[in-house]
Amino acid sequence: MTVARQVRLRARPVGLPDAGTWDVVDTELPALGDGEVLVRVTHLSLDPAMRGWLNDVRSYVPPVGVGEVMRAFGVGTVLASRSPEHAVGDAVSGITGVADHAVLRGSDLSPVDLAVASAPTWLGALSMPGLTAWFGLFDVARARPGETVLVSGAAGAVGSVVGQLATAHGCRVIGIAGGPEKTRWLTDELGFDAAIDYREGAVHRAVRAIAPEGVDVYFDNVGGEVLDSALRTLRRGARIALCGAISTYNATEPAPGPAHYMSLLVNRASMTGFVVFDYEDRYPEAIADLSARLRDGSLVARETVVRGGVDAFGDTLLMLFDGGNTGKLVLEL
Amino acid sequence: MTVARQVRLRARPVGLPDAGTWDVVDTELPALGDGEVLVRVTHLSLDPAMRGWLNDVRSYVPPVGVGEVMRAFGVGTVLASRSPEHAVGDAVSGITGVADHAVLRGSDLSPVDLAVASAPTWLGALSMPGLTAWFGLFDVARARPGETVLVSGAAGAVGSVVGQLATAHGCRVIGIAGGPEKTRWLTDELGFDAAIDYREGAVHRAVRAIAPEGVDVYFDNVGGEVLDSALRTLRRGARIALCGAISTYNATEPAPGPAHYMSLLVNRASMTGFVVFDYEDRYPEAIADLSARLRDGSLVARETVVRGGVDAFGDTLLMLFDGGNTGKLVLEL
Repeated sequence: MTVARQVRLRARPVGLPDAGTWDVVDTELPALGDGEVLVRVTHLSLDPAMRGWLNDVRSYVPPVGVGEVMRAFGVGTVLASRSPEHAVGDAVSGITGVADHAVLRGSDLSPVDLAVASAPTWLGALSMPGLTAWFGLFDVARARPGETVLVSGAAGAVGSVVGQLATAHGCRVIGIAGGPEKTRWLTDELGFDAAIDYREGAVHRAVRAIAPEGVDVYFDNVGGEVLDSALRTLRRGARIALCGAISTYNATEPAPGPAHYMSLLVNRASMTGFVVFDYEDRYPEAIADLSARLRDGSLVARETVVRGGVDAFGDTLLMLFDGGNTGKLVLEL
Repeated sequence: MTVARQVRLRARPVGLPDAGTWDVVDTELPALGDGEVLVRVTHLSLDPAMRGWLNDVRSYVPPVGVGEVMRAFGVGTVLASRSPEHAVGDAVSGITGVADHAVLRGSDLSPVDLAVASAPTWLGALSMPGLTAWFGLFDVARARPGETVLVSGAAGAVGSVVGQLATAHGCRVIGIAGGPEKTRWLTDELGFDAAIDYREGAVHRAVRAIAPEGVDVYFDNVGGEVLDSALRTLRRGARIALCGAISTYNATEPAPGPAHYMSLLVNRASMTGFVVFDYEDRYPEAIADLSARLRDGSLVARETVVRGGVDAFGDTLLMLFDGGNTGKLVLEL
């Protein structure tokens, strides 16, 4: 009998999640049914989207129910298997939940090749964040060589991949991030053409100084004032890919909308929302491309890895909302 | 020597234009140059977009300069011609400005066939409003038969054509307008499936009662609260065509943005701005289609025609902003 330590949703948070949001419980896992595997979870993905999953509203996935194990992507090792797809000792990834052990359907898990990349990278550049960047930039925003691409949350898991893909694609790339350390990393290590510290002043003024003709693509991970300011920098025919709005996820009052949205009309521009899960059929194509870029060094994967038990989940999650992480945030159990 | 009575911009308005906005002046027109024609203007088009042309901001056309004749589309009769394209007595349309006479380049004017439609219709369903509806619905919003189309400003020059085109295209059409007279007109005369009076309560609740599954297309002429409410009714894959924002044009403080814009993400939806002038190459195709619909009665053109001199321009323009007109607003000189 395996005992799993799990983080469950105790109460829906108002504003930032806190200690009252979570219960940490030890639970005896059931015996394996046919097609199931027992996984020891070694790495958990911490994502801004998690905050949205805590709200009881209609969204692109159902909310996590009160009392349920918190939803999370994870990487782990198969300890026991009644699934033909995964053998004991295999590394796998999937929605494991925030737990150190889990019984899962083998068909819901993907094999993970740790020779290609480390477990944290399999939760970042080779998982939802990397895929989100890939489909958002190429399919939703349809970035073309020679265009100017602006990306917010540029030092985050998604944004850092967006910028590097765009650079490799022949675009001129401007990243928006918080603080000089992150902006330096973008230009000096990742090859962004320019980076803006949104804490230093209005984003549209900084963009205009760098690209007076405006931007062709804006990849939005943050929403709020930065989105509103970015709208003022659009070039004719610009495309905004709407990926997230981390600046508003913990708001306790309705966040204001982007007042400059009529820039879409003046500039014959579009703003399009997307959810990476819709591209599931094409994940292999994107994973193959992202893996090749990692191998040849044209894509740098970076993760902020925090080591701790599942008990550390609640505190670690908050790093996402105070700018504490660079690249993908991972909890290594 | 011809004396033209002209309306010129005296001072840029803050909020609603008023008497201080305009100068009415009598001006001797110059002798005709080569390629020019003298036109007696008989009908002037009054458009919500005019309000935007008065602001000194970068937009899709330059602002009207202080001291300049107010920009306007008009229909008139050629009184004298040094242009091979137009003979004396011909009816023409184009940007005449707010004036009873004007000297214009013949190449900037289009012939108007008054056997096909009346002069007011040549400023409405067969001019910018009709073309805006046609390209916005078919090209920008890509409405498909069987889909649900929501349109605001539905009793206006653009919206009334959008709804009728969508109905004929096999869409289910819901119009939003102000007051029971207009909503009744939409359903009883124009064949809309349903109409909502936005003064009666939140638009999203009314839409949900009519189309619980949501809308595939939202054609926005009004902006403001109605746009924000409409965002809450989107169905997966919905398209918003952003045509105008009449509710905000006279605002003296920055109007709030659409707070529910993240509905675009949840529903994988898009919001796209457009300007009809970009479709100039394809006007003949659309005019031919709109004319055929007028002829066979499947499209009803309606205009509110005010009779008066150019002195009546300022007061007549205000009808657009207090809901005074149904269909296209025209000043007949």
